Amino acid sequence: MKAIAVAPGAGVPEVVERSVPEPAPGEALVRICRVGVDGTDYEVIEGSHGGLPDGDNELILGHEAVGVVEDANGTALEAGQYVVPTVRRPPTGVETNAYFERGEPDMAPDGEYVERGIVGAHGFMAEYVTSPADDLVPIADDLAQWGFLVEPISITEKALEHARATRSAFDWHPESALVLGTGSLGLLTAAMFTETLGYDRVYCLGRKDRSHPTVDIVERLGATYIDSRETPVPEIPDAYEPMDVVYEATGYAKHAFESIEALAPNGVAALLGVPGDWAFEVDGGRLHRELVLHNKSLVGSVNSNRGHFEAAIDTLADLPEWVLEGIVSGIYDLESVDRAFPEATARVPAGGRGSAGTVDDDTTIKTAVEFEGI
Amino acid sequence: MKAIAVAPGAGVPEVVERSVPEPAPGEALVRICRVGVDGTDYEVIEGSHGGLPDGDNELILGHEAVGVVEDANGTALEAGQYVVPTVRRPPTGVETNAYFERGEPDMAPDGEYVERGIVGAHGFMAEYVTSPADDLVPIADDLAQWGFLVEPISITEKALEHARATRSAFDWHPESALVLGTGSLGLLTAAMFTETLGYDRVYCLGRKDRSHPTVDIVERLGATYIDSRETPVPEIPDAYEPMDVVYEATGYAKHAFESIEALAPNGVAALLGVPGDWAFEVDGGRLHRELVLHNKSLVGSVNSNRGHFEAAIDTLADLPEWVLEGIVSGIYDLESVDRAFPEATARVPAGGRGSAGTVDDDTTIKTAVEFEGI
Repeated sequence: MKAIAVAPGAGVPEVVERSVPEPAPGEALVRICRVGVDGTDYEVIEGSHGGLPDGDNELILGHEAVGVVEDANGTALEAGQYVVPTVRRPPTGVETNAYFERGEPDMAPDGEYVERGIVGAHGFMAEYVTSPADDLVPIADDLAQWGFLVEPISITEKALEHARATRSAFDWHPESALVLGTGSLGLLTAAMFTETLGYDRVYCLGRKDRSHPTVDIVERLGATYIDSRETPVPEIPDAYEPMDVVYEATGYAKHAFESIEALAPNGVAALLGVPGDWAFEVDGGRLHRELVLHNKSLVGSVNSNRGHFEAAIDTLADLPEWVLEGIVSGIYDLESVDRAFPEATARVPAGGRGSAGTVDDDTTIKTAVEFEGI
Repeated sequence: MKAIAVAPGAGVPEVVERSVPEPAPGEALVRICRVGVDGTDYEVIEGSHGGLPDGDNELILGHEAVGVVEDANGTALEAGQYVVPTVRRPPTGVETNAYFERGEPDMAPDGEYVERGIVGAHGFMAEYVTSPADDLVPIADDLAQWGFLVEPISITEKALEHARATRSAFDWHPESALVLGTGSLGLLTAAMFTETLGYDRVYCLGRKDRSHPTVDIVERLGATYIDSRETPVPEIPDAYEPMDVVYEATGYAKHAFESIEALAPNGVAALLGVPGDWAFEVDGGRLHRELVLHNKSLVGSVNSNRGHFEAAIDTLADLPEWVLEGIVSGIYDLESVDRAFPEATARVPAGGRGSAGTVDDDTTIKTAVEFEGI
């Protein structure tokens, strides 16, 4: 079968030939349909995040997948059923641990998990994959075409569940939300705030010139686009309003700290970015005082568990089709796989691979690879 | 009647004469017994925090009080009953607002409250005070002598309630806690961790040379004293262990950020200090990444509500008497009021007030003023 693999640091993924995996007891064999590409994939491709499975020198990419059960292999699944796989698995050679046993692998610390397609385990960009049936979440046939968006939506389901939890000791009625970042995760989250979570006022901060499809989506949602070059985060409360929720999806470390200043009293900032080391100056006294005197909270969130995937499927069903169509810039088969990774191919030096003709312009929001039509 | 008042910035409180207040409908008249002194009082005395009631040029101090009902004035209270007053009240001229109506004045933002003895309203350091009966929390006779510790304990009740809330979206079993600060609030909190909350391993960070009564209390609790001059906060995980909970009661702004590094995965730091502006460098990228990849949380907490006072009275009943005796260094009547404010009198320049003889040494942990014996 064909798969998409990368030697971390090589800079470009390639189509490779692998044998079809055989499901172990409790596992099903899944024929993969579509797999989304996101920022984490680029970090894996560059070699700045993630890692190879033991003994391998290439990693099969992909953690945002939807497929169809090819062989239920005696599990409770049924052949022909569409499923979305979760991402974390117990470490190699370990059957389970306390985090997996209680259904919270997303809370496992380093060393207590591998992540398919990211660190320590091959991903889902292959014609076939195997997975424990318990880690395959059924999705309705009519949603399956968008099933590769379930994993990113589940990331927000978890982050917002944890953010709400931080505010659960008092009577909290958030009305305003600020999303930092206009990538696909930021846009999906902005759409959740306006379309499924009932926030009155939603803002989305980016660095795009108009007109741009991301700005169009933000505005069609009824949200307000804020250009960070005109209004830096700390100025947002004065220019717009202080925010009950800030959702950071930029990975820009200063945003983690500036979000404290953007919050309204009793607000919470959910942090999702994974920046590298970066030392800079902050007014730590003012930020500390702000957190305390106004009962503010910061909460970091990574990964998601099966419950968040299930919630994400419900959310996906409630999001308007135009949002999904607007966010997904292109779905490419293996013949045009370069186009699914525009940022990787764009990074190849001129003359390097002769693939400049396939590089997307910067209006690309979200791509996916298609192995099998839905 | 006699009261203790200060013109903010004057540097020393003084005994003043005031008329006995008359309770309005719904209010009771309380004869004050004891009032604790804490860091906030010193900030008010210095003029760095808080503010005068409208039209006054002196503020009656005191927000950690216990008294006895002198005149129930038709309320549900009974004359002779010991009570502890809460601190926040609606702003002057305002009967109530949404925060007070739902019993959460501690979550009210600036402008939506005054604080007795701190900002905008006279405090409890007076022979008599009036208060709405709903803001007077009954306390058993045998606990009344320690009733001035209810307010500081309530601060920790709230902070830890909010800290637990941040971790309520998953199965969390904290075992280790680090208290930053060995002032009276830090010591009371360390005692709560070991004596009433059942934490297995408790650490308390300070800057005191042995032998010192605070270190003795920490060690008698079975907690571990960490000298911050030998082991700075970021080194604590390696030197001891990463912490499930960090409780910051120093007001030292770098601690707010360093606590992120001291936390175990899935841990939470409760911040309580109120520092002034202070710019410094942090490795913001590493801190941001730590928060995200290890699902960590920071939560600021200020003030407390009636529910926290009630919980604090339960806690007070469960704390060993030796802890309370160890923390309370001295209780002084009006004749020796200078001794109740050793840090204020200590700040008077040599030769300034001739009161050097009354200055306590730095083994003072917590003092209180006594207006009436219990």
